[in-house]
Amino acid sequence: MSSDLYPVTRLAEVKEATLRSGLGALLLTPGPDLRYVTGYEAMPLERLTCLVVPAAGEPFLVVPRLELPAAEHSPASRLGIEFVPWDETDDPHALVAERLGAVGSVGLADRMWAMQSLRFREAMPGAEQKLAGGVMRELRMRKSPAEAAALAEAGAAIDAVHELVPQFLKAGRTEREVGRDIAEAIMAAGHATVDFVIVGSGPNGASPHHELSDRMIQTGEPVVVDIGGMMPSGYCSDSTRVYSVGEPPAEFAAYYEVLKQAQEAACAHVRPGVTCESIDAAAREVIAEAGFGDYFIHRTGHGIGLETHEEPYIVAGNSELVEPGFAFSVEPGIYMAGRHGARIEDIVICGETAGERLNNTTHDLVIV
Amino acid sequence: MSSDLYPVTRLAEVKEATLRSGLGALLLTPGPDLRYVTGYEAMPLERLTCLVVPAAGEPFLVVPRLELPAAEHSPASRLGIEFVPWDETDDPHALVAERLGAVGSVGLADRMWAMQSLRFREAMPGAEQKLAGGVMRELRMRKSPAEAAALAEAGAAIDAVHELVPQFLKAGRTEREVGRDIAEAIMAAGHATVDFVIVGSGPNGASPHHELSDRMIQTGEPVVVDIGGMMPSGYCSDSTRVYSVGEPPAEFAAYYEVLKQAQEAACAHVRPGVTCESIDAAAREVIAEAGFGDYFIHRTGHGIGLETHEEPYIVAGNSELVEPGFAFSVEPGIYMAGRHGARIEDIVICGETAGERLNNTTHDLVIV
Repeated sequence: MSSDLYPVTRLAEVKEATLRSGLGALLLTPGPDLRYVTGYEAMPLERLTCLVVPAAGEPFLVVPRLELPAAEHSPASRLGIEFVPWDETDDPHALVAERLGAVGSVGLADRMWAMQSLRFREAMPGAEQKLAGGVMRELRMRKSPAEAAALAEAGAAIDAVHELVPQFLKAGRTEREVGRDIAEAIMAAGHATVDFVIVGSGPNGASPHHELSDRMIQTGEPVVVDIGGMMPSGYCSDSTRVYSVGEPPAEFAAYYEVLKQAQEAACAHVRPGVTCESIDAAAREVIAEAGFGDYFIHRTGHGIGLETHEEPYIVAGNSELVEPGFAFSVEPGIYMAGRHGARIEDIVICGETAGERLNNTTHDLVIV
Repeated sequence: MSSDLYPVTRLAEVKEATLRSGLGALLLTPGPDLRYVTGYEAMPLERLTCLVVPAAGEPFLVVPRLELPAAEHSPASRLGIEFVPWDETDDPHALVAERLGAVGSVGLADRMWAMQSLRFREAMPGAEQKLAGGVMRELRMRKSPAEAAALAEAGAAIDAVHELVPQFLKAGRTEREVGRDIAEAIMAAGHATVDFVIVGSGPNGASPHHELSDRMIQTGEPVVVDIGGMMPSGYCSDSTRVYSVGEPPAEFAAYYEVLKQAQEAACAHVRPGVTCESIDAAAREVIAEAGFGDYFIHRTGHGIGLETHEEPYIVAGNSELVEPGFAFSVEPGIYMAGRHGARIEDIVICGETAGERLNNTTHDLVIV
């Protein structure tokens, strides 16, 4: 893994941010926060692995003894921190508490399982539990050039899958059959994992998070295809396009054009200094003016990086100012319950003066 | 999805078990617990989806409005419970607290993210948080005939992948290249997701949880291949075999035979009424008697079902008695740090009188 992507200097930045936040320590279990700080891609499991970053004192990594060789081979070994192995019959939460000493508060990785957080509460009854996200978000939202490159690589990989989708879509095939082909193509395009495959045909396209069903695709139906995975770098892809098997209904074709303009307007609005909610508003205005406001039932987007959904959220009420390096989806949709729906989604990263799309397949309705 | 696999009667069983446990309610966010109770495969996301099972009162499902159609199309719709949608700018944790009313304690899904559990703590300061696992484990450990069939289907699928591994393994290829072929084969064999692909060649085989590296496989090296995924049913596969690219070192061949006997002894020991730890001991004794005790550095196995790792754990100290329907891995290993290692893993389900292996490819070292 490129050391640019997971620089060894990051741990010191996180430690400083922890100190500034007033937290006594961060407790980072396997997941995106741990990977961001160390580059170590540990599987979340019932056996505790935990990076402890005290505001005062040296960070250390508690790790099951049988994971020790994997941890030592991981990029975490570059950090020069102590690895503290524990054996199958030890109590690793007590071990963390003892090593860390008394602290008034701890920041838990946002995705820490209750299985771990409740045991930490028992082991450290005096430490108030908060979310590490409060510390991590400031760092994780601002993508470095290496992270931007990793997201661009992920974008190109999922674009390559969308280029293949017309070959998979045929009247008479089920969503699940098409989804299986797409999942294989996601892996073949260089992803390490398939994170989600949404194939919403006809009325299923009106359910934004419909995944796959045994419904057979019919001629004349639009199909929403929203797909993504994680690259070996750890960075995620996510892109939505709409296809139609034969000519779609005229009603659909009309609102699809509105949607395309809305998505374009929101992307064009991205630049440093605008609020996240103003990007949402830019898409929503176009859709509302055309009379479809009631059919755009979700926020415009979500941040993306080591997680498919992370901060910042592109939603009404979020007055956070966009900065260079912020990366997020722009994905307005229009949904006609019981009939059909559409969504167009690109990942956009904010540059020094404007946003740049990381997905570049056509925004036109693709008729197959 | 077969309704046998996720029977509608399960919710009532869980409610009764909650009442017996003394908990005020279970809060089940997306993950294996929610799927077990409802059949609903919801993605864990920052937006709260939560099945609330009060000990007294009617269960209800809180769901983001844009997930409502997906929830309504899911097997959860068969349960006849109220779906409570929330909008993008609502506070869903407060909504749960208000609907549920005052309770003294709640059981959180074992995998609930801190992002959700800490917000529930704020929204319900009077409710002590415990793990739902205490209630769920009794049910989930005892696989029904339909669950046993789903695990057998998963076992056959991963066996089909192991049959292909010899074609992928060649001196001069890297672990990562082989791993990519295996991941595609896991999908092609009918899995819905690839959960892990371990290809540990030569010295990497001595690290039980090594995954993939760019190390090139050499002639004369044993390779540990431990792979698994989740089937569309939700049930998981997990099986390990050892291959050798050309003849392995004599030292390796000798301890591999010991390992094979140990794994056989542990499988043969499985029957109703034995303790979990006695199965661990059955494998460990064979290995220790042959002088390799110090090189078997982990427990013998883990339960499997909707999670790859779940209860019961086959480990010293676990005096739980095995019952018909318990399903778990039997996977002793011998690891020579810096040189090579081996592990043989089958999923075994306990029947009325004996254990039955769900993985049935050869246990012999496969020389390619």
